[in-house]
Amino acid sequence: MISNDGLQASFFKLRSNKVFELFVIGIIIFSAVTIGVRTYDLPPLMIDIIVILDITITVIFLMEIIVRFLGEPIKKNFFKSAWNIFDTSIVIVSLIPIEDSELALVGRLVRIFRVLRMVSIIPELRMLLNSLLKALPQLGYIMLMMFIIFYIYAAVGSIFFSEINPELWGDIAISLLTLFRVMTFEDWTDVMYETQAVYGLSWVYYLTFIFFTAFAFLNMIIGVVVNVLEEEHERERQKHAEEMGEPTLMDIERQIAELRTLIVEKAEEKH
Amino acid sequence: MISNDGLQASFFKLRSNKVFELFVIGIIIFSAVTIGVRTYDLPPLMIDIIVILDITITVIFLMEIIVRFLGEPIKKNFFKSAWNIFDTSIVIVSLIPIEDSELALVGRLVRIFRVLRMVSIIPELRMLLNSLLKALPQLGYIMLMMFIIFYIYAAVGSIFFSEINPELWGDIAISLLTLFRVMTFEDWTDVMYETQAVYGLSWVYYLTFIFFTAFAFLNMIIGVVVNVLEEEHERERQKHAEEMGEPTLMDIERQIAELRTLIVEKAEEKH
Amino acid sequence: MISNDGLQASFFKLRSNKVFELFVIGIIIFSAVTIGVRTYDLPPLMIDIIVILDITITVIFLMEIIVRFLGEPIKKNFFKSAWNIFDTSIVIVSLIPIEDSELALVGRLVRIFRVLRMVSIIPELRMLLNSLLKALPQLGYIMLMMFIIFYIYAAVGSIFFSEINPELWGDIAISLLTLFRVMTFEDWTDVMYETQAVYGLSWVYYLTFIFFTAFAFLNMIIGVVVNVLEEEHERERQKHAEEMGEPTLMDIERQIAELRTLIVEKAEEKH
Amino acid sequence: MISNDGLQASFFKLRSNKVFELFVIGIIIFSAVTIGVRTYDLPPLMIDIIVILDITITVIFLMEIIVRFLGEPIKKNFFKSAWNIFDTSIVIVSLIPIEDSELALVGRLVRIFRVLRMVSIIPELRMLLNSLLKALPQLGYIMLMMFIIFYIYAAVGSIFFSEINPELWGDIAISLLTLFRVMTFEDWTDVMYETQAVYGLSWVYYLTFIFFTAFAFLNMIIGVVVNVLEEEHERERQKHAEEMGEPTLMDIERQIAELRTLIVEKAEEKH
Repeated sequence: MISNDGLQASFFKLRSNKVFELFVIGIIIFSAVTIGVRTYDLPPLMIDIIVILDITITVIFLMEIIVRFLGEPIKKNFFKSAWNIFDTSIVIVSLIPIEDSELALVGRLVRIFRVLRMVSIIPELRMLLNSLLKALPQLGYIMLMMFIIFYIYAAVGSIFFSEINPELWGDIAISLLTLFRVMTFEDWTDVMYETQAVYGLSWVYYLTFIFFTAFAFLNMIIGVVVNVLEEEHERERQKHAEEMGEPTLMDIERQIAELRTLIVEKAEEKH
Repeated sequence: MISNDGLQASFFKLRSNKVFELFVIGIIIFSAVTIGVRTYDLPPLMIDIIVILDITITVIFLMEIIVRFLGEPIKKNFFKSAWNIFDTSIVIVSLIPIEDSELALVGRLVRIFRVLRMVSIIPELRMLLNSLLKALPQLGYIMLMMFIIFYIYAAVGSIFFSEINPELWGDIAISLLTLFRVMTFEDWTDVMYETQAVYGLSWVYYLTFIFFTAFAFLNMIIGVVVNVLEEEHERERQKHAEEMGEPTLMDIERQIAELRTLIVEKAEEKH
Repeated sequence: MISNDGLQASFFKLRSNKVFELFVIGIIIFSAVTIGVRTYDLPPLMIDIIVILDITITVIFLMEIIVRFLGEPIKKNFFKSAWNIFDTSIVIVSLIPIEDSELALVGRLVRIFRVLRMVSIIPELRMLLNSLLKALPQLGYIMLMMFIIFYIYAAVGSIFFSEINPELWGDIAISLLTLFRVMTFEDWTDVMYETQAVYGLSWVYYLTFIFFTAFAFLNMIIGVVVNVLEEEHERERQKHAEEMGEPTLMDIERQIAELRTLIVEKAEEKH
Repeated sequence: MISNDGLQASFFKLRSNKVFELFVIGIIIFSAVTIGVRTYDLPPLMIDIIVILDITITVIFLMEIIVRFLGEPIKKNFFKSAWNIFDTSIVIVSLIPIEDSELALVGRLVRIFRVLRMVSIIPELRMLLNSLLKALPQLGYIMLMMFIIFYIYAAVGSIFFSEINPELWGDIAISLLTLFRVMTFEDWTDVMYETQAVYGLSWVYYLTFIFFTAFAFLNMIIGVVVNVLEEEHERERQKHAEEMGEPTLMDIERQIAELRTLIVEKAEEKH
C-alpha cells in the first residue's frame, strides 16, 4: 500500500502527462462531434448509441476531474482556479439524471458548454482568453461614452418615431436594438426612408448617429492598437536590455565618472 | 454668521467631495432611467409619479448648479467653462413650465440631454471627448477632399440618373444621401442594377466611387493612427527621459569635454 | 507704358496674392453651388440667371488663367504642370458655345469638373492627392494578386452558375461584378442560396472567395500602414537629429578617440 | 554535337532570360483572355479558333516546362519546388484528350488554373504568397477560438431555432453557415426578427455572438499588425546597424575601458 503523498504525486504526474492531456482533448472533440451529430435527424439506434457515448464521456470527464483534484498538492487551491470550478460544475450538472423534457434542454445546453473545456485544457487558448479579458477594462470609458450616445439617440428615436413604426421604435429597448442595427449598416436606409417620409430632416438623426458611433468605434480600435503596440514595445526593450547585456547611457555616464576619478588619482600620485 | 469667504470655501469643498459627485452621478442615472421608462405605455399613476420625480430631479440639479457656482472662487470663471454653460442652460430650460403640447416635446428633449451631464461630471469622459474633438481638425483636409468627391459624383448622378429614379437621384441633396448609402454598401447593387438597365456602363460610376471613398477613408484612418502613435511615442520618450533620469547623448558629450579639460589641467599642474 | 518684365512681375505678384487666391476659391465654391442648384426644378427666370452667372464664372476663370500664364516667368514651364493643363482645358471647353442637346450634357459635365479646380488651387489638397497617388504603386502586386483571385473565381463562377442566373453569372465581366458585390457582403447570401439549390457545395466557393479577398485586403491595409509608419519614423528621426543637434553615437566615439590622442600627447610632453 | 552539360547550361540561360520570361507571362495572359472569351456566346468559327489556340498554348507550356526541366542543373531538385510540380501537373492534365462532357468541365477548370501560373512565374507574387502563408500559423489559436465560439453558438442555435426555420438552423452545418452570414451583417436582422417572434430574448444570442466574433476578429487583425510591425522594426534596426556602421553602446563602453588602461599605463610609465 503506497502512502497518500505518493498517490497524490502519481496523480499529479498523470495530469501533467502529455498523453493524458491529448486523450482529454480527444474526448472533448469527440463530445463536440456527438453534439453536432445530434442536430441531424437520426435513426433510433443511432440515438441510443449517442446516449451510451454521452454517458461514457461524462464518466471519463468525472474521472479526469477526480484525477486533477487528487493530483493537486494543496486541495483548497483547486477551487481557487475559475477553470477548475467551471469544469467541475459542467461535470456535476451532466451527472444529474434528467427525465423532464423541459430540463432535457438544459441538459443539452450543458453538454454544449463542454466544448468550452477545450479552452480550459489548452494553455494557449487560456492565455488568449486572459489577454482578451485584460483588454476589456481599457475600453471601459469609451464603451460608457458609446452607451450614452446610444441611449440619447434611442430616447429621441422612441419619442419621434414610435408612432411611425412601433416594431422598430416602440420603446427605448427596441430603439436601442434598432440603433445597433443601423450601426451595422443592416438595411439602415429602409429604417431611414420610413421615418423620412414623416420627418423630412430625419436623415440628420441617422447620419450624425453613424458619424458619432463610427468615430467612437474607430477610437476604440486605435486605443487597443496603441496599447498593444506599447506593451509589445516595452517588453521588447526590456528583453533587449536583459538578454543582449547592452549597457545603458547611465552605465556610460558612470564609467566616465570613474575615468575622471582615475585621472585625478594618477595626477595626485605623481606629486 | 460665517463670512462670505468661508461659505464659498465650504461650497468648494462640497462640490469637490467624492460622495457629492457620486450622488450627482446617481441622480443623472436615475434621470436617464425615468426617460427610458417614459417610452413605455404606463398607467396614469406611474406617469404622475414620474412627473413628481422629474420635478425633484430638476430641483436637485438646480441646487447642484448653485453649489458649484457659489463654490467657484472667481465667479466669472464659472461661465468660461463650456460645460458649466451647458449644465446651466439644461437646468434653466427644465425650469420653464410647459403647457403647450408642441413645446412639451422640446421639454422632453431637454430632459434627454441631461444624460450628457454624465460627460460633464465624469472627468475621464470629458478628457475622452476632448481628445476626440482634438483629433477632428487633422481630418479637415481629407474630409474636404471626400466632400469634393461626393459633390462631383452627386452632381453627375443627378444629371444622368434623376429621370430613372427621382427618389434616389432627384436633386443633389438626395444624391448625396444615396451616395452615402452606397459608401456604407447598403443595398448598393439595387441602386446600381436600376441605373445599369439604362446606362450599361454605370458600374464604372459606382466602382470608381467606392474605390475613391474607400481609399480616402483608409487614409483618414491611417492618418489618425499615425498621429496617435506619434503623440504616444513622444510622450513616452519624454516621460522616459524625465522619470528615469536617463542621461542623453548630449550629457555624455558634455562629460567627455569636461574630462578633456581635466586632463589638460592636470597636465599643466605638473609643469 | 511699363515694360513687359514689369507687367509679368506684377501679374506674378497678383497670382501669389492671398486675396486673389481666396477670391478664386470663392468663385469655385460659387460655381459648385450653381451646379447644385441646377439639379432642382427651377423657374425659367432662375435658369436665365444661372446661364448669365455661368458665363460670368467662365470669364473670371479665363481671366485667372491668363493672369497665371502671364505671371509665369518662363512661359513653357506653365504647361509642364499637369494642374495648369487641367485648368486650361476646363476653361477652354467651357468657352465653346454648345447648341446641340447631346453636347449640352458634356458641357454640364465639364462645369462639374470645375469643382476639381479646388484641388489645384489649395496646396494642402494637392499635397494630399500626391501622397495618395504615391501610395498606389506599392499596392501594385497585391492588386494584381487580388485580380488573379477575382479572375479565377469569375471564370469558375460563369462556367458553373451561368445557367442558374445569367444576370449574375452570364459572362466573365458580369461575374466579376457579382464577385465584387459578394466581397462587399451586399446580399451575398441571396446569390449563394440560389446556386446552392443546384450545387450543394457552392458555399465552399463563396466562403473561400471571402476568405481570400478579406485576407488579401487585410494585407493591403497592413502594407500601407507599415509603410506610412516607417516613412514617418524615418522623417522624425532625421528631424530629431537635425533640429535638436543631438550627437550620434559616432560623434561620441570620435570624441573618445580625440581624448585618447590628448592623453598620449600630454604623457609625451612630460618626458 | 554539343555536350550534355553545354545543352543544360544553354537551357538554364534561356529560362533565366528576361525576354523568355516576358514571353511566358504574355502567353499566360493570352490564355487567361481565351478563358474569359469562352464565357460569352460565340459563333462556331470562334470556338474552333479558340480550340486551336488552346492547343498552341498547351504546346508552348509543355515546351516551357521541358526547357525549365532541362535547364535544371540537378534534375531531382526540379521536383522539390511545389511550384514546378504544380506547373507540370497543370500541363500534363491539359494534354489528356477529353471527349466525355463530364470531364470536359474538369478540362475547363484545369485551363482556368493556368492563370495561377502567373504567381509561379512572377517572383514578387510568389514572395507575396509566401508571406501571406507565413502569417497564417500565427493566427492558428485565434482561429481555433473563433471556431469554438461558432460551434457552440451553432449547436445552441440548431437546438432552439431548428423548428422555426429549418433552412437556416436545420442542423449544425447549416447553422454554422447562418452564423457566418450573421458575422458579415448580411440581413442578420431578418434572421433575428424571425426567431425573436418565438423567443423574446433571442437578441441576446445574436448580440453576444456579434460582440465575441467582432472582438476575436479585432484581436486577429491587431495580432497580425503588431507582428508585421515588429518584424519590420527588427529588420530596420539590423539594416541600420550594418549599413550605417553606427557603433553600439557596447562599443563605446569598450573604448572607455581602453582609455582607462591607457591612462594607467601612461601614469606607470612616468614612475
